[in-house]
Amino acid sequence: MNSISYHKKYKGKIGTELKSPIDNRSDLSLAYTPGVAEVSLELFKNPKSASMLSLKNNTIAVISDGSAVLGLGNIGAFGAIPVMEGKAALFKKFANVDAFPICLTTQDNEEIIKIVKSISPVFGGINLEDIEAPRCFEIEKRLVGELDIPVMHDDQHGTAVVVLAALINALKVVKKGKNVEIIINGSGAAGTAVTDLLLQYGFKNIVVCDSKGAIFTNRPDLNREKKELSKKTNKQFEKGNIHQLIRNKYVFIGLSKGNLINKSDVMLMKKGSIIFAMANPTPEILPEEAKLGGARIVATGRSDFNNQINNVLAFPGIFRGALDNKVRKITDKMLILAAVNLSKLVKKPTAEKIIPNPFEKGIVGAVASAIK
Amino acid sequence: MNSISYHKKYKGKIGTELKSPIDNRSDLSLAYTPGVAEVSLELFKNPKSASMLSLKNNTIAVISDGSAVLGLGNIGAFGAIPVMEGKAALFKKFANVDAFPICLTTQDNEEIIKIVKSISPVFGGINLEDIEAPRCFEIEKRLVGELDIPVMHDDQHGTAVVVLAALINALKVVKKGKNVEIIINGSGAAGTAVTDLLLQYGFKNIVVCDSKGAIFTNRPDLNREKKELSKKTNKQFEKGNIHQLIRNKYVFIGLSKGNLINKSDVMLMKKGSIIFAMANPTPEILPEEAKLGGARIVATGRSDFNNQINNVLAFPGIFRGALDNKVRKITDKMLILAAVNLSKLVKKPTAEKIIPNPFEKGIVGAVASAIK
Repeated sequence: MNSISYHKKYKGKIGTELKSPIDNRSDLSLAYTPGVAEVSLELFKNPKSASMLSLKNNTIAVISDGSAVLGLGNIGAFGAIPVMEGKAALFKKFANVDAFPICLTTQDNEEIIKIVKSISPVFGGINLEDIEAPRCFEIEKRLVGELDIPVMHDDQHGTAVVVLAALINALKVVKKGKNVEIIINGSGAAGTAVTDLLLQYGFKNIVVCDSKGAIFTNRPDLNREKKELSKKTNKQFEKGNIHQLIRNKYVFIGLSKGNLINKSDVMLMKKGSIIFAMANPTPEILPEEAKLGGARIVATGRSDFNNQINNVLAFPGIFRGALDNKVRKITDKMLILAAVNLSKLVKKPTAEKIIPNPFEKGIVGAVASAIK
Repeated sequence: MNSISYHKKYKGKIGTELKSPIDNRSDLSLAYTPGVAEVSLELFKNPKSASMLSLKNNTIAVISDGSAVLGLGNIGAFGAIPVMEGKAALFKKFANVDAFPICLTTQDNEEIIKIVKSISPVFGGINLEDIEAPRCFEIEKRLVGELDIPVMHDDQHGTAVVVLAALINALKVVKKGKNVEIIINGSGAAGTAVTDLLLQYGFKNIVVCDSKGAIFTNRPDLNREKKELSKKTNKQFEKGNIHQLIRNKYVFIGLSKGNLINKSDVMLMKKGSIIFAMANPTPEILPEEAKLGGARIVATGRSDFNNQINNVLAFPGIFRGALDNKVRKITDKMLILAAVNLSKLVKKPTAEKIIPNPFEKGIVGAVASAIK
């Protein structure tokens, strides 16, 4: 079966279900009129009681404007539906979170912020998804500040948690520490957040490269987020493109586009290097070729190779924890602990197993316990 | 159990459920990355395919701004949650429609219209709910015109369908026709739509009364909708308040407020009158008192008396039909047929049984078959 026929067969992936019985007139008068009037008045007087008396306690929105869907780019609200619905299904499957997809026809930041705030009452959290950089930074920042429920752009922070978890274990395998030389290629939503979280965790030696080459202090064309990155990375003021910058690095983290580097690039890296090639569906380099170039550990975003770095390891648990622990704001400290907890699920990391697969037990609990 | 403890016990009334299996890596690659990319591209190229390949085929939004919640008035977005969630639960229970509640923090018409349009891609229909008159008329009209999915304000049209069905059967019991004298008290959302549908059905002799008395042509203070009503009703230019207007009417339809009329008002009506006292939770007159005044048939909105005129008899079937038959616009003709079908479910109407109760079989099918 291919994916189109899978979707056609089931007519989508999520629906609703009753959480309470409505089997007779008495139930009806409790769940709906006239009894419900009493509950409505309670929520009117005390909106906080919504998280005790309504779906809000277990419901989050998965919201996209369709501007950066998977690796497909700006395919709009309709193009975004299957991904957001899929994400909602994964929330249910892995963490029993009731998630509902919202795909917006506007790509105007102010409108998006206004809409998300307007529809927020029924939700206990907001998962932003597949919104292009740098717009995603502003939207997330504003909503985090202006809403009293947790808001997280998963392309940024979910990715960062899983990359950090995988990197912690990869470095255990090769017995290296926080001063390894890291080159991060891509400074969109994921690249920026990964860099930030790796810095917060304590990595000291990171160079970030965007489509124009190394990011360094005072490079003239940097936007606000890249300017921030430039202050915290590339202390040696390295310049050049990815093929030049990769030389003598120990870790390559690609959050960019497929077929970007090849065997000879990897050969320039330090011996026994670590390659996270996470462009989807085509990685920056295929595992086999990376190994021919001398890489010791290779991870990708794909399920058909070992070491799949997949957001589904993080987002269900992050929101499970946020809902259960009534967390208003998801902090970097929580995310780092989530990554550490996730890494510990692999008892003895090896080059071919630095990260759990999504169907292993204990993942959601390990991540959720960090979000409090 | 009271309603608060019911809601506390179940922590709300609806959640999500998986419609397709996600049990292993292969399912994951079909429902989500990488397979889903193919489905996203299909929806990008052909948005209409959303109704075949996504939740859109069976999902509607129940949307309120909380400005007119039940009989409680303007209690806002949070106050609206239990009612909208309850309505979503009834959609699932009675018609297997996946409905999701959206409660908006804005009460500005243009903002509401913009938001509903913006979030519409995942929905196959929009049920507007508990929005105050006359704002509800503009919002509904605009959305019906500007969206390509069915939009219906249930307080208007759902109510009208059930009232018409009940009236058809009540008139069978008393053997009267379309020229009976009808007084409708209340010209808000429900009163206006009930009047319109009764006129469309062929009733000829209707007077509508609002809080200022009879609505008649050229009454100076009429808004646009009431002006329209004035042209189509009250051909005799009756004036006065409800206690005066009720004299010599055969049918009283109250969509106004509790304890409005009493026994002596009913005594002024034609002999063997029909009283629909639908204010909630307190009817315009209680059945016992109406009967003491000489009424032969009494219906209310309440489940604890016979003849409950309840929207739940209509809205699940209306949207079931709209989704199944890919109806873009719900017309008066469809609604009249729905009312007729609904009335026929009571094989032998009596004074104490003019309308089915919500748990009887066949209701959704009868209503849905009219919406095509």
